[in-house]
Amino acid sequence: MTYIYSLHDGCEDKNELGNKGGNLVTMAAKIGLPVPSAFVLSISDAYRQYKRTGKLDEAEIDKAMASLEKEMKRELGKGLEVSVRSSGPVSMPGMMDTILNIGDMNKVKASIQQVFESWDSKRAIEYRRLNSIPSDLGTAAIVQAMVYGNRDADSGTGVVFTRNPSTGERGLFGEYLSEAQGEDVVSGARTPVPVASLKTKMPKVYAELDKITKQLESYYHDMQDVEFTVESGKLYILQTRSGKRGGYAAVKIAVDMVAEGLITREEAVLRVTVEALRSLLHKRIKSPESYKPLTQGLNAAPGAAGGKVVFEPAEAAALAKQGVATILVRPETSPDDIHGIAAAVGVLTQKGGLTSHAAIVTRAMGKACVCGAETISVDMKAEHFVVGEKVVKKGDEITIDGSTGNVYLGLLPLEEVSVVPELAELISWCNGFKRLGVRTNADTPEMIAQAVQFGAEGVGLCRTERMFNEPDRLNVIRSFILADTDEERQAAIKKLLPLQKKDFTAIFKKLNGLPIIIRLLDMPLHEFLPAEKDTTDPKVKKRIAELREVNPMLGHRGIRLAVTHPELYKMQIEAIEQAMTAVPANVSIMFPQVMAVEEVNLVKTFFKDTDIKIGVMVETVRAAMTADQLAEAVAFFSFGTNDLTQATLSFSREDAEEKFLAPYLEKGLLKNDPFEVLDIQGVGKVMEAAVFWGRRAKKDLEIGVCGEQGGEPKSIRFLHAIGVDYVSCSPFRIPIAKLAAAQAALKEKMSVKAEDAVAKSVSLM
Amino acid sequence: MTYIYSLHDGCEDKNELGNKGGNLVTMAAKIGLPVPSAFVLSISDAYRQYKRTGKLDEAEIDKAMASLEKEMKRELGKGLEVSVRSSGPVSMPGMMDTILNIGDMNKVKASIQQVFESWDSKRAIEYRRLNSIPSDLGTAAIVQAMVYGNRDADSGTGVVFTRNPSTGERGLFGEYLSEAQGEDVVSGARTPVPVASLKTKMPKVYAELDKITKQLESYYHDMQDVEFTVESGKLYILQTRSGKRGGYAAVKIAVDMVAEGLITREEAVLRVTVEALRSLLHKRIKSPESYKPLTQGLNAAPGAAGGKVVFEPAEAAALAKQGVATILVRPETSPDDIHGIAAAVGVLTQKGGLTSHAAIVTRAMGKACVCGAETISVDMKAEHFVVGEKVVKKGDEITIDGSTGNVYLGLLPLEEVSVVPELAELISWCNGFKRLGVRTNADTPEMIAQAVQFGAEGVGLCRTERMFNEPDRLNVIRSFILADTDEERQAAIKKLLPLQKKDFTAIFKKLNGLPIIIRLLDMPLHEFLPAEKDTTDPKVKKRIAELREVNPMLGHRGIRLAVTHPELYKMQIEAIEQAMTAVPANVSIMFPQVMAVEEVNLVKTFFKDTDIKIGVMVETVRAAMTADQLAEAVAFFSFGTNDLTQATLSFSREDAEEKFLAPYLEKGLLKNDPFEVLDIQGVGKVMEAAVFWGRRAKKDLEIGVCGEQGGEPKSIRFLHAIGVDYVSCSPFRIPIAKLAAAQAALKEKMSVKAEDAVAKSVSLM
Repeated sequence: MTYIYSLHDGCEDKNELGNKGGNLVTMAAKIGLPVPSAFVLSISDAYRQYKRTGKLDEAEIDKAMASLEKEMKRELGKGLEVSVRSSGPVSMPGMMDTILNIGDMNKVKASIQQVFESWDSKRAIEYRRLNSIPSDLGTAAIVQAMVYGNRDADSGTGVVFTRNPSTGERGLFGEYLSEAQGEDVVSGARTPVPVASLKTKMPKVYAELDKITKQLESYYHDMQDVEFTVESGKLYILQTRSGKRGGYAAVKIAVDMVAEGLITREEAVLRVTVEALRSLLHKRIKSPESYKPLTQGLNAAPGAAGGKVVFEPAEAAALAKQGVATILVRPETSPDDIHGIAAAVGVLTQKGGLTSHAAIVTRAMGKACVCGAETISVDMKAEHFVVGEKVVKKGDEITIDGSTGNVYLGLLPLEEVSVVPELAELISWCNGFKRLGVRTNADTPEMIAQAVQFGAEGVGLCRTERMFNEPDRLNVIRSFILADTDEERQAAIKKLLPLQKKDFTAIFKKLNGLPIIIRLLDMPLHEFLPAEKDTTDPKVKKRIAELREVNPMLGHRGIRLAVTHPELYKMQIEAIEQAMTAVPANVSIMFPQVMAVEEVNLVKTFFKDTDIKIGVMVETVRAAMTADQLAEAVAFFSFGTNDLTQATLSFSREDAEEKFLAPYLEKGLLKNDPFEVLDIQGVGKVMEAAVFWGRRAKKDLEIGVCGEQGGEPKSIRFLHAIGVDYVSCSPFRIPIAKLAAAQAALKEKMSVKAEDAVAKSVSLM
Repeated sequence: MTYIYSLHDGCEDKNELGNKGGNLVTMAAKIGLPVPSAFVLSISDAYRQYKRTGKLDEAEIDKAMASLEKEMKRELGKGLEVSVRSSGPVSMPGMMDTILNIGDMNKVKASIQQVFESWDSKRAIEYRRLNSIPSDLGTAAIVQAMVYGNRDADSGTGVVFTRNPSTGERGLFGEYLSEAQGEDVVSGARTPVPVASLKTKMPKVYAELDKITKQLESYYHDMQDVEFTVESGKLYILQTRSGKRGGYAAVKIAVDMVAEGLITREEAVLRVTVEALRSLLHKRIKSPESYKPLTQGLNAAPGAAGGKVVFEPAEAAALAKQGVATILVRPETSPDDIHGIAAAVGVLTQKGGLTSHAAIVTRAMGKACVCGAETISVDMKAEHFVVGEKVVKKGDEITIDGSTGNVYLGLLPLEEVSVVPELAELISWCNGFKRLGVRTNADTPEMIAQAVQFGAEGVGLCRTERMFNEPDRLNVIRSFILADTDEERQAAIKKLLPLQKKDFTAIFKKLNGLPIIIRLLDMPLHEFLPAEKDTTDPKVKKRIAELREVNPMLGHRGIRLAVTHPELYKMQIEAIEQAMTAVPANVSIMFPQVMAVEEVNLVKTFFKDTDIKIGVMVETVRAAMTADQLAEAVAFFSFGTNDLTQATLSFSREDAEEKFLAPYLEKGLLKNDPFEVLDIQGVGKVMEAAVFWGRRAKKDLEIGVCGEQGGEPKSIRFLHAIGVDYVSCSPFRIPIAKLAAAQAALKEKMSVKAEDAVAKSVSLM
């Protein structure tokens, strides 16, 4: 048991010296940096003894102080002052006392007592309770010599990054303020100069700083953010930690460090956060700090975009044809606005949350979106919106930042996205490490081409709804729905067949050999009819009334359509078979909304071509519960996590979001929006069961996930763990999904290694 | 290996002699009955040898025939004819050949070959394939002396039951036709006389028949249906089997046989079918065979009822006050018609299936209902309905039979239900055998009183929706929903509190010490507002629009209301607490639509009285998946199998029934309507998981089932098996549920015994 450690003892044990104390030893003893002299009163002995007896071992402290004085070549109170601060094994920022500028021995001892006592202060106890930190950890106390950046003209204080946190370029980057202490920099009263200015002003100090920061990078294998003080020309290092950095810099630094041999590829992949990558994959406002936002909404779909304000989707479409960028502003959006959203460069809505229609659609399209900006008031009639006293009219220019939720007046300069070589390299490493495949959800040749550029390994979900909504076929499908006789129905089907064949042929041409999974029609038929108020045709009105459903989400859709209207699925299957003859392709077909193997067996009889792999969407709970039976009937599963979430939570997405999702998140009844981040405790458990039963029945059953949660990093870790084969997400999410998948695989490997080590040590006992 | 068995050999082995052969031996050798002489060619030797060689062992047959001639004291062709028929170990009715009246030896042998060959006839092969009967079982062949009921005036043929199949009374009951063979009875050309007439006409035969049938009952421990022939004054028994019987007779016979020492109480309980009990518990038409139905619909809710035709619920209510019985006729019913359904004695609808609103509500109320009678055409304006050319007007009298689906003109005589002493005794035995508790779903003091009469062991589900729908409080809850300010809302709550207290006090008074589980408000608020078309108030219209939901089933209801409008649940809890002070009661409270333990923890803070047991409805899949967490937070679960079925299958009940449930049942994609019979493969698996996880977290967790499937016998067997503590069903289903629960417990005991026996025999090896 040691009462006091000097920095030279070399003990870095944080359970004994706390975090700060351990770090001081690392810098002073391990790396040999010029750190102000200090000693540390231990947790196990000094702190515990004080707690027990209420007394300090004054003789030990006197002895340590004598050494410190000797080292500093000054005496306490005579040119030497010390600070006393706490150093716990767990960080409790701002909770514990710190005392500076102590000039005599009695005050040092009183200060040590004060620091030890502050472990049991009300706020510290409350903080530990809230953060589940055990109360008996205790704290060390550091007594350290003060150094003064304000002593003379050769003194000063500064902060440097070892690489540029925006560009990632190597070399010192930071600021220096001469004749100042740290608090002077924080207060902002005086303006610091670039640290490079030291190169000429104090070349020796600069050279030493350069050398030291390189040592720190080598030691910690990461870019460092270093605080230093120069006292009368002598450099002291006060603190070092991993430096925060922008998305681009994060990627560049990680890739560069691999080239420099500082870290491995695995470490590089683990170090780049998905947030960093996300910010890199979208347009950004250049120096956003220079502009004052007009207002703020929810950061619904990342990226920045600027253009003329329009209120009508048709107007956005018309202006897009003239090459005019527009921001579509609406109280909220609906499926009727899709063409306007597609034409605009960004969307701003007054109402709706992160899972609103606008948010979901724009994220899928990779367009910027700020939604739920409740401070704005949209007047569709007057074609303007009001924020406070400011009226923004149709045609006015605005810029929105979907990454922050900010809305600005005018067109701000933007930085373009580019898949930089460093990113391409990082993703290529990810491809090597990850086990999860990453495919894309894409319905059109254009989306497929884009997804291929982003590295898609196939099309995991090709919906067929949109194909029917194209103007030339909407009338045909309507004539099918309105038909009174079998002849009329057959006539409509005959017209649809060549159109669908054309759709699939065009898609197959863009695949470049990648596999594709086509989902047969899922949408309820009534969604193809016009809105009741938009028609005067009594026949159409009658059919709308007949097809109306109380709960369309749980209604007559998906494979249920094939039970009651086999013609549609038969036509789609035939169109796919014909398209495959025209353009050979690796095609799988899946059935939506399946809840019983009997449904699958019925639709399997519709096939001629036995080369097509057949699978089911697992998006009803019953499909998951009967996964063993389904697995015997099909080659693959694809989890439809959106609908499965609705079914598992009994949450209608649209209703939940409008009526009660917000209070649920606010009150902590749900940790995340389950339509954004997979609900692992509920939906995840249903999926785990399906994977288990499915694979028990068919060992090589292929299992994928379509549904937007498949591109969400936290969800990906879980999907990797339960043995899913691939996820499928919108094209823009592919690099992020790959990074998350690689990180999941690497973390799994690490924990297996750790377990192996434990097993080995146990077997040696 | 035996080639031919005589009836006197005593071998009853059905694998050797087939079913019929074995039974013949039982009657002849074991009971000593006068059976026409016969011998049986064995399966293992005679049949197999023939299959192998294509030849019969003629010497053996000649020898057996010689014995038969000796026994019959006649020679083949000279007063003796024989029949040859098959006798397999598994019944294949009508599939195998039978040859009668064979008069010479060559034909006997040819006939035996023909019977053996017919095992491999096309239709027999197809029958076995369809019924999964192994093809190598083979068949025996019976050669039996013909006897002749048409020989002379002292000959005849008849059928008797050992007890009256309608009343259950002991004593011969049946018919006799003199100078006739069996086929003459079947053809109906001559009318038989009651068997009792033999008592005077042929007293010796009658006495022998009486003695023999008593022997048969003693031997088989069941009421028998016996075919016999009298040939020149000599009685022959041709066949015996368990007799079919009506509901009342089934109960009386079972209870009587226990008193007579013929069977045990366990056997009595196992022998009465739930169908028998069901028919006993409802009014019946007296001699329905005497009337021709006007038309037929679906037998939606059992029982018969007659009254004046009305089309408007209000009219049914008005007439009920004058004591006039009415049948409510509607194209289909909706929740608005409840008061009319409650006032009528029966309901007839043109549309809707077995799970339509009319069917569900009437079953719950124990009222007769025929629904989906598509041959009728209801004209609400003209207030009449048309069947073919017949017009039935308002005020005309009709009778409906909800057990058969028949609709009759006029008032037919009905038989009343009475809980006969035999039924009471049988149910008291069930109470002793069953492990499952049987509670009732009841919301009003009247229903509770009725359920207690039917033997309810508590109230498993007391809904609170209907209380708000009473006219005096509907306006108050509406003022709550329409309130603009907190003050207005609080004022509404203050008015509701004493009304709810009154509701609960009245209910508690009827409990007689039985426990009650009250479910807090589940219904979405918009259901308390009038229909959009029924209001002109712009404020109401606006609120209707705001509360409208895309999928109300998955929307803002149940405990979600307590998250956004805590006042309502707080008021309900306070009302219950106050009512308990007024009338002490054993009260539990449960929360509907729970999907996370966090919701439960929030609402638990609304309670003052800690004596109230708190539970959750498990009716979302997520509740089942997080059953471990929920079990730690509550004292009990109650499965809401209706909503859980909707969530598991992604089936909206209303939409499924109207749009696709019928084709699913027709095409065999579903075996049963999952809202009638619990879907064991899907919903059952979710429930099993919840029971497992719930009990692992809390060993003594109480688990019940409310939801109508809980009263369905097939479902009850499953619920017993997974360890549910009680089911809760409508009052009229209680005796049936008790019988099914007792049968489940007895069958489990039997299979445990069988397993024990196997284990014992294994351990002896």
